[in-house]
Amino acid sequence: MLIRLGFDIQFETVAEVPIVTLLHVHPSRQKDLREPDELRTDPAVEIENYQDSFGNHACRLMAPQGRIRLHNSTLIEDSGNLDDADPNATEIPVNQLPVSVLPYLMNSRYCEVDLLSNTAAELFATAPHGWQRVQAVCRWVHDKITFGYPFSSPVRTALGVYTERVGVCRDFQHLAITFCRALNIPARYATGYLGDIGVPMDGNPMDFSAWFEVYLGNRWWTFDARHNTRRIGRVLIATGRDATDCAITTSFGVARLINFQVISDEVQEEIRATA
Amino acid sequence: MLIRLGFDIQFETVAEVPIVTLLHVHPSRQKDLREPDELRTDPAVEIENYQDSFGNHACRLMAPQGRIRLHNSTLIEDSGNLDDADPNATEIPVNQLPVSVLPYLMNSRYCEVDLLSNTAAELFATAPHGWQRVQAVCRWVHDKITFGYPFSSPVRTALGVYTERVGVCRDFQHLAITFCRALNIPARYATGYLGDIGVPMDGNPMDFSAWFEVYLGNRWWTFDARHNTRRIGRVLIATGRDATDCAITTSFGVARLINFQVISDEVQEEIRATA
Amino acid sequence: MLIRLGFDIQFETVAEVPIVTLLHVHPSRQKDLREPDELRTDPAVEIENYQDSFGNHACRLMAPQGRIRLHNSTLIEDSGNLDDADPNATEIPVNQLPVSVLPYLMNSRYCEVDLLSNTAAELFATAPHGWQRVQAVCRWVHDKITFGYPFSSPVRTALGVYTERVGVCRDFQHLAITFCRALNIPARYATGYLGDIGVPMDGNPMDFSAWFEVYLGNRWWTFDARHNTRRIGRVLIATGRDATDCAITTSFGVARLINFQVISDEVQEEIRATA
Amino acid sequence: MLIRLGFDIQFETVAEVPIVTLLHVHPSRQKDLREPDELRTDPAVEIENYQDSFGNHACRLMAPQGRIRLHNSTLIEDSGNLDDADPNATEIPVNQLPVSVLPYLMNSRYCEVDLLSNTAAELFATAPHGWQRVQAVCRWVHDKITFGYPFSSPVRTALGVYTERVGVCRDFQHLAITFCRALNIPARYATGYLGDIGVPMDGNPMDFSAWFEVYLGNRWWTFDARHNTRRIGRVLIATGRDATDCAITTSFGVARLINFQVISDEVQEEIRATA
Repeated sequence: MLIRLGFDIQFETVAEVPIVTLLHVHPSRQKDLREPDELRTDPAVEIENYQDSFGNHACRLMAPQGRIRLHNSTLIEDSGNLDDADPNATEIPVNQLPVSVLPYLMNSRYCEVDLLSNTAAELFATAPHGWQRVQAVCRWVHDKITFGYPFSSPVRTALGVYTERVGVCRDFQHLAITFCRALNIPARYATGYLGDIGVPMDGNPMDFSAWFEVYLGNRWWTFDARHNTRRIGRVLIATGRDATDCAITTSFGVARLINFQVISDEVQEEIRATA
Repeated sequence: MLIRLGFDIQFETVAEVPIVTLLHVHPSRQKDLREPDELRTDPAVEIENYQDSFGNHACRLMAPQGRIRLHNSTLIEDSGNLDDADPNATEIPVNQLPVSVLPYLMNSRYCEVDLLSNTAAELFATAPHGWQRVQAVCRWVHDKITFGYPFSSPVRTALGVYTERVGVCRDFQHLAITFCRALNIPARYATGYLGDIGVPMDGNPMDFSAWFEVYLGNRWWTFDARHNTRRIGRVLIATGRDATDCAITTSFGVARLINFQVISDEVQEEIRATA
Repeated sequence: MLIRLGFDIQFETVAEVPIVTLLHVHPSRQKDLREPDELRTDPAVEIENYQDSFGNHACRLMAPQGRIRLHNSTLIEDSGNLDDADPNATEIPVNQLPVSVLPYLMNSRYCEVDLLSNTAAELFATAPHGWQRVQAVCRWVHDKITFGYPFSSPVRTALGVYTERVGVCRDFQHLAITFCRALNIPARYATGYLGDIGVPMDGNPMDFSAWFEVYLGNRWWTFDARHNTRRIGRVLIATGRDATDCAITTSFGVARLINFQVISDEVQEEIRATA
Repeated sequence: MLIRLGFDIQFETVAEVPIVTLLHVHPSRQKDLREPDELRTDPAVEIENYQDSFGNHACRLMAPQGRIRLHNSTLIEDSGNLDDADPNATEIPVNQLPVSVLPYLMNSRYCEVDLLSNTAAELFATAPHGWQRVQAVCRWVHDKITFGYPFSSPVRTALGVYTERVGVCRDFQHLAITFCRALNIPARYATGYLGDIGVPMDGNPMDFSAWFEVYLGNRWWTFDARHNTRRIGRVLIATGRDATDCAITTSFGVARLINFQVISDEVQEEIRATA
C-alpha cells in the first residue's frame, strides 16, 4: 500500500523566532519512503537537520519576522496490515528491562505517575499481566473519557484527563501511558500520520495523530487508547516521554498558527504511475 | 583539598523491589577520586552499573524482601575553589545552541515552563541578559521562598513553589530552572554532595543537596537558588531535567526508608596519611 | 430605558434529574420589572421558589426523563446609565467591615486567594488604595488575559487563569476577585444579563454574562475585568463567592444541554405599546 | 461527664493585624456550658462577637503590633455517649432536601466535587444507599490515606488527598466530604475539641480536631474519616463548607504562630467541687 503524506503549516510572527520541528518521518520508516522527505519553507530559510535525544529526525530553523510556511509531500510504502499484536506478549520485570527503556517508567510533564499510581493499582489489580493488562488500560481510558475537539487544552495532564474525563487524542494517550508506567510497564508517547484507512471517515479535517507504545516481551508495541482498535497505515514521526518531546513544532517565542493542513491518504499504484 | 564522601541508607521492603540508584560520583569527577567509588550493599546483591541517558553513573539492583543497606565511603580531591563564575557569560540564541542542550529548555514534571513563562517574562523583563539575568532569577527565588524541612513535599512543582513560597533545596532549584527555561536559557537540575566548607554549620543533619546548571557562553555553570552564593566543595552526582531524573534512589515498588545518613567533610592530608 | 430579557434553555436527560436554577432577576431589581418574571417549563413541572443563602431568587425542580425546556421573557426598566462609579471610594479596613462582608475575603472553589496572595501583593504594591487599586486589578487582568470562547473550561480556577492567560468572562472575574481578596478588598462574583447597549456588537450569540462586585466605602460596586469599561444595562441575577454559587443551572445528575438562547435587548416604548 | 476545655495561642506580628476567630463552643452546645466561655486576650483588646453566616460564634479583634495571646478555659457537660448513629438513616433525594442544606452539595475550596465525581461514582457504585454508603466512604478514606503530622499542608485539597494518599485529620474529612457530595449526600466540615476519652492516648500534643457531618434522614450526623470509629466527647466549635470556613483563626496580614496549646480532658465531679 502507498500512502501520500503531507502537511502545510503557516505561522505569523512579529519578530524572528527559532522553531524546532518534528515533521519528518521517523528514521525507522526511512526505508519505506518512495519520494524524498524534505521540509520545505517559504520563504526559504536555512534548516539544520539533526537526530534528537529520543532518536527522532528534528529540524531547527529561524522563522523570519512575518509569515513562514512549512510544507512537504512525500510517499511511503506501508504493509497495509493492522498494528502488530501479540496477546501473549509478557511484561518484563524492571530489573530485566533494557536500561534504555527505564526512562519510560518515570514521571514526565504530562504524565504524573506518582499522582496516579494508587489509582492504577486499584483499577487494574485484577487484570491479567502483560498484553491483556495494557489492553485493560486502553479499554478503561477509551470507555471513560469523552473525545471532543472543543476539549483540547495544551495544559491538561494525565491527572486532568482522569478528573475531567474529556480530551483529544493526546489526552487519551497521556492517561494510558501514566497508568502503564504506574504498573511498571514502560510506555512512551508517539506521534505521526494516521489516515482513515479501513475505518469510516469522521468528517473532521485530518490532523497528526497521537498514540503510544508499550514495551512488552522484547520490543515496543503500538497501542491507541483513543481508538482502542488496531489500525492500518500509521506512519510514525516521533516518540518521547510525552507530548512535550513530540511536539510537531516548538516555537521559542510568539508564533501564531494561521494555517494547518495534514494529508495522509492511500493512493493507488496506477495513479502514482501517471503522477 | 580532600573531601570524605559517604552515605548509609537503609530500606525495608515486604517483597523484592527493583531499585535504581544515582549514588556514584558523576563521571566528570571520576578523575578526582582518591579511593574507589563503589556501591556496597548488605546483604550483598548483584549490581548492574550503567550510564543513564543523561550521562550519569547509575546502578540497578534488586532489593530482597526484608532490609537492605546501601553504603559507601570514598575520598575525592577538590580544588577548594568557589563555584566558577563569569559575570560576562552571555546567553546563546536558541538557534545557535548545541542541539544536545535544547531539551533543557522544555517542560518537565516539576518544571512547568508553559505555566510560568509569562510570570518569568514579567518579573525579569528589565534584568540584563546573560549571567546577570540568571543571577536575578536566583536572587528572586532566594529572597521570596522560605526554606524549611517541614515544607518538604515530593509532589510540589515549580508552580507550587511559586504559589506556596516555601520549600526545600530542590524546590528552589525547580523554580529557578523553570524561570530560566522560560527566558530561553537552558537550565538543568543537579544533585550531589555539598558540605558546609566555608560557611557556618546550620545544625541540620547532612543530606544530599540540589543545585542547578545553566548554559551560558559555551558551557554549563553552577547556580544555587537555595543559597544564592558561590560555595566550595560541591561534588556532582547527577544532572537531568529535574528531580525525577536525579533521584538518589528510585524504587519500583514499596520500599520504606528507615535510615539515611550522608557525609561530606573536608579531611586533612595528615589524617589521611595515618588512616 | 426598557430592556427585553429572556432565555430558552433545553436539557435532555436519561432519568429524572433535580435541577436548581438561578434564572430570575435578582430581588434587588424586582422593583424595576414591568412584566412578570416567572420561570416556565415544558413540560410543566412543579417549581419551588426560594431565596438562597446569598439572597438570590433560586428555583428547584425535577427534570423528567426525556427533554425539558426552561424559558421566560420579561421586561425591565433600566436607568440607562453607565455602571455607578466613584473614583474616591475607599477601602474599609478589615476590622471595620460589616461582618456579612467578611466571607468575600476568603478562598473559594475558583478563587484560591492563598495561592495568589503574594502575586497580588507584588503586582499591586504601588497601586493607590481604594477604587484606583481595584481599577489597577481590572486593567491588569483585562490586558494580560486573552478572551476566547474556545478557551472555556469548567474547571479553570483563578490560578489557571493566571498561568494560562486565556479564558472567558467568568475566568477574568475569578482572577480579579482573587486579587482583590488577596489585597483585603471584599469581592464577589455576579452573573446576569448584559446586552450590547452602547457598544459595538461582537457577533457572538448572546449569553449570560459574569462580572464582579467590590465592597468600597459602604456599598458594593460593579466592576468587570473582562470589558474593563463601564457599561449600560446590566441586569443582575445572582451574586456569590464564585461561579459555583451563581450557576444559572445546577444539575444533580446527567443533563445534556441541547439548546441555549439568551436575549437582552433595548426596546422602544412605542414598540412596547403596540406589543 | 464533665470536660475541661481550653486553649492558649500566641501570635507575633510586625504590624497591627485583624484576626477573626472561631474559638467559642458552638451555639448548639451553649446549654451545656458549666463555666463562662469567653475569649480572653493579653494584652486586652476590644473583641467583637458575632454569629457568622454558618451559625458559628465568631470573634473579630485587632492584634496589636508585637505579641498577642488568645486563651480560655471552660467546662462543659457531655453525655459521655458515643457519637449518635442510626444505620438505617436514609438519603434524602435532592429535590426533597431542605434548601438550607443544598450548599453542602456544592464545590468548595478544598472539596472539588466536580473533579472527583466520577471517581466517587466508580468507587461506591455498589455500596448500599444511606448510612452504609457514608460508612463505605469513611472506610475507604480511612484505609487508603496514611495519617502523619509531617504531611500537613495548608494547600492540599481533596484531590491532593486522593492522589497523594497522605494527610492530617482535615485532609481525611475533605476527601470524605467530597465523595459524599459527589454522591448527592450533603456533607459539611466540622471542627472542635476531641480528647482521648475512651481511646488510647497517641502521644501527640492535643490539637483541635476536624470531623464532618452528613445530612441523612432529617438531621446532620457526625462522621470521622480519620478515626472511622464512634467517639466520646466531641465538642463542636464550628461547621462550614470546608476548612476555609472553620479556621480557628484567620489573620488578614502576617501573624506568626509562636505558641499553640489545646486542652480537652475529662474531669471528675469531686475535682470540680473543690475547684
